[in-house]
Amino acid sequence: MQSGTRTVNIGIIGLGTVGGGVYRLITTHAERYRKNLGVDLRIARACSRSEERARELDIDRGRFTTDWRDVVSDPSVDIVVEVIGGEHPATEIFEQSFSAGKYVVTANKALLGRHMEELATAARAAGVQLRCEASCGGGIPIVDTLGRDLSGNEIITVAGIVNGTTNYILSRMAEEGLGYEEVLADAQRLGYAETDPTADVDGLDAASKIAILSSIGFATRITADDVHAQGIRAVCAQDIEVARELGYAIKMLAIAHRTESGIDVRVHPAMIPASHPLAGVSGAMNAVCVVGDAVGETMFYGAGAGAFPTASAVVGDVLALAEPLSAGTQALPEPEPFKRELAIRSIRDLSTRYYVRVVPDGANDARSCAEEVLERHGIAVGQALTLEDGSVALVTEAVREGDMADAIAEMTSAEGAPCEIANTIRIEDVAAWTEGVEAN
Amino acid sequence: MQSGTRTVNIGIIGLGTVGGGVYRLITTHAERYRKNLGVDLRIARACSRSEERARELDIDRGRFTTDWRDVVSDPSVDIVVEVIGGEHPATEIFEQSFSAGKYVVTANKALLGRHMEELATAARAAGVQLRCEASCGGGIPIVDTLGRDLSGNEIITVAGIVNGTTNYILSRMAEEGLGYEEVLADAQRLGYAETDPTADVDGLDAASKIAILSSIGFATRITADDVHAQGIRAVCAQDIEVARELGYAIKMLAIAHRTESGIDVRVHPAMIPASHPLAGVSGAMNAVCVVGDAVGETMFYGAGAGAFPTASAVVGDVLALAEPLSAGTQALPEPEPFKRELAIRSIRDLSTRYYVRVVPDGANDARSCAEEVLERHGIAVGQALTLEDGSVALVTEAVREGDMADAIAEMTSAEGAPCEIANTIRIEDVAAWTEGVEAN
Repeated sequence: MQSGTRTVNIGIIGLGTVGGGVYRLITTHAERYRKNLGVDLRIARACSRSEERARELDIDRGRFTTDWRDVVSDPSVDIVVEVIGGEHPATEIFEQSFSAGKYVVTANKALLGRHMEELATAARAAGVQLRCEASCGGGIPIVDTLGRDLSGNEIITVAGIVNGTTNYILSRMAEEGLGYEEVLADAQRLGYAETDPTADVDGLDAASKIAILSSIGFATRITADDVHAQGIRAVCAQDIEVARELGYAIKMLAIAHRTESGIDVRVHPAMIPASHPLAGVSGAMNAVCVVGDAVGETMFYGAGAGAFPTASAVVGDVLALAEPLSAGTQALPEPEPFKRELAIRSIRDLSTRYYVRVVPDGANDARSCAEEVLERHGIAVGQALTLEDGSVALVTEAVREGDMADAIAEMTSAEGAPCEIANTIRIEDVAAWTEGVEAN
Repeated sequence: MQSGTRTVNIGIIGLGTVGGGVYRLITTHAERYRKNLGVDLRIARACSRSEERARELDIDRGRFTTDWRDVVSDPSVDIVVEVIGGEHPATEIFEQSFSAGKYVVTANKALLGRHMEELATAARAAGVQLRCEASCGGGIPIVDTLGRDLSGNEIITVAGIVNGTTNYILSRMAEEGLGYEEVLADAQRLGYAETDPTADVDGLDAASKIAILSSIGFATRITADDVHAQGIRAVCAQDIEVARELGYAIKMLAIAHRTESGIDVRVHPAMIPASHPLAGVSGAMNAVCVVGDAVGETMFYGAGAGAFPTASAVVGDVLALAEPLSAGTQALPEPEPFKRELAIRSIRDLSTRYYVRVVPDGANDARSCAEEVLERHGIAVGQALTLEDGSVALVTEAVREGDMADAIAEMTSAEGAPCEIANTIRIEDVAAWTEGVEAN
């Protein structure tokens, strides 16, 4: 059982931002891992489509390849690190690695967000592990925390800020009073947003992440397709300003909450109390709240992206696998995943308070006409603010989404819409996140 | 490798707050662990000095004992949960459990704060594991996070609020403008502080915890005796009020920071910027910031004590051991602990800014006389506030602790002390915590 008896060989596929970070982290820290952890890590193979990248990272010809098959078929490789992202050839890399008895460490949220159950099952069938700490929350240890440290709990809620790009945009809009488009352009220039920002700003990236986290937390199968996702494009500076007056911050949240009628899982901008810990998370940082019935409310905060934070998560996974390999044994396969059958609740069944901003038009009084339509749908208005430009911000009492959708449809219907809705934003009931925690 | 093939037997020693929580959590969640994790946990033995407690928890006579030796010598027991605290008989429980090839899960910070290296070494020699997630930060998964998830990093800083009692007291003093004694009495009445509050308010509990966390984080041996510990008894409402005016909150911090000349490890009240995430941690909650060279700054937040949060950590450890046992294999021993020799820096070598509150006396002008003494010791004053009662708050530039100690000694020396120092509080340089993080 003496550890450190054999070298553990890593094959990295993908040498982009994350892959380069992983390469650099392992290379510069190898001596530390040997001395402190008794683990001798060696990058046996590294693969990228760009030979230029191999030169940049100073990877010698003998270890570098442009064909991922060279990595997966190399008998010396124990652990394959897949950091190319996307569905193909990542799926094939996973399958062939498992067939060859190799462990896989990945940051591929898009693939896992759709196919985590099949991939975890395939890993288990092959007697190996698939680890994905880096797929959610960048450097924050949240996957492992949910799946292991908090596994004594019945998880009630997983909710947080899991997309750095949208948090960066909303934070700067809030801090500088700027508009969405302006901040997006700046974020693109600074590298915080991609040229095609769709996956981030429309909530698809966050949907993949909350699918992964909720699958693990609730031990059930949830995919990105199960997640109601709505982006931040419609949020404007005025909404943020009004939110502040009402005591709220607007954050792009990913929420998975267990209710008696099923899992409520969604991604959308929401108002949360300015005093809530998530409200203080700014810039490209991420934070995830986990509520368990025993542990109560916890929060995990850190950098949600970036070469080295993400590499920290990847290498953490690599070391977890390498320790037993290094000692001459094996990391056990994970238990059979997601055994529990839990229903996914329709977004129409969610009950939430709403912020509704209504713009006056010549013919109608915005406020009375909006209130009239809302009341007709059984929606009570709890608070109303008339804004400087004459538009009106209404805060409803808790309302079923379906009723709200119907009311909005009526207000904005083509034939003689009685008033113009500038925006609606959910006001998240954060107190509901902790319902069901054991009293101490 | 099919998991769930055999029942894993637990022996709990101690049925106080934490032990009772562990008993209840396992009992109520056993079916969930079986179904979701493939782990069949059974409490085979439970030990307490109080038979009354066995009745309260509805533990049948066959499993209950008042003698811990019955648990440790029971051949069916796989994992011993030690939650009695204190040095004896906990030490004997550990030793005899290891000898019998049993794994140990503990929340015993006082014992581990002094003897973690010997105990971990003994566990390793016996081919078993000693797990102690519950010893620090209650329900927050911080021990495992440092030791495994972030093990790819060179840890730079571990700093946080790890004592719920003192954070509760300081929070209420800040929120309600009350004095220390008044809040302490109330905290004792409400069960947030013990009748003898020494271990908490004098920083001994926090010293044990930061010794454990820093030993793991820096892979070196640090004991509670290495920690410079100073309590909160001297903090008064006026200090908190002045801190607020200066833009700071006063928090009881445990800090371990790696510098080129050694590990700086200490526990004391400190002023931190009101905007720092730790400043918002109130009541009995705990939070720990970990800075790694790759991951950057992270923070982990949750309940620092209480029956169920602590039980969450204990049971997380139990499940981590039970998974391989359940599958018919074994949890690997941990790597040899704390191999690295790192010096502990003397507190006199710390360089920090200081808040100094000086009370006028009839003969002298408090401010000019304090400034004069400070300047004679080479200590520059950066900011000065005259308070309503005529006392003066000075903020020094960064100063070596040794020089500050000398200046304070002169100001308060018996023969003709030139002015009276009401209090001094360090102003923590939180920016230094993240020095050395890799740029992305």
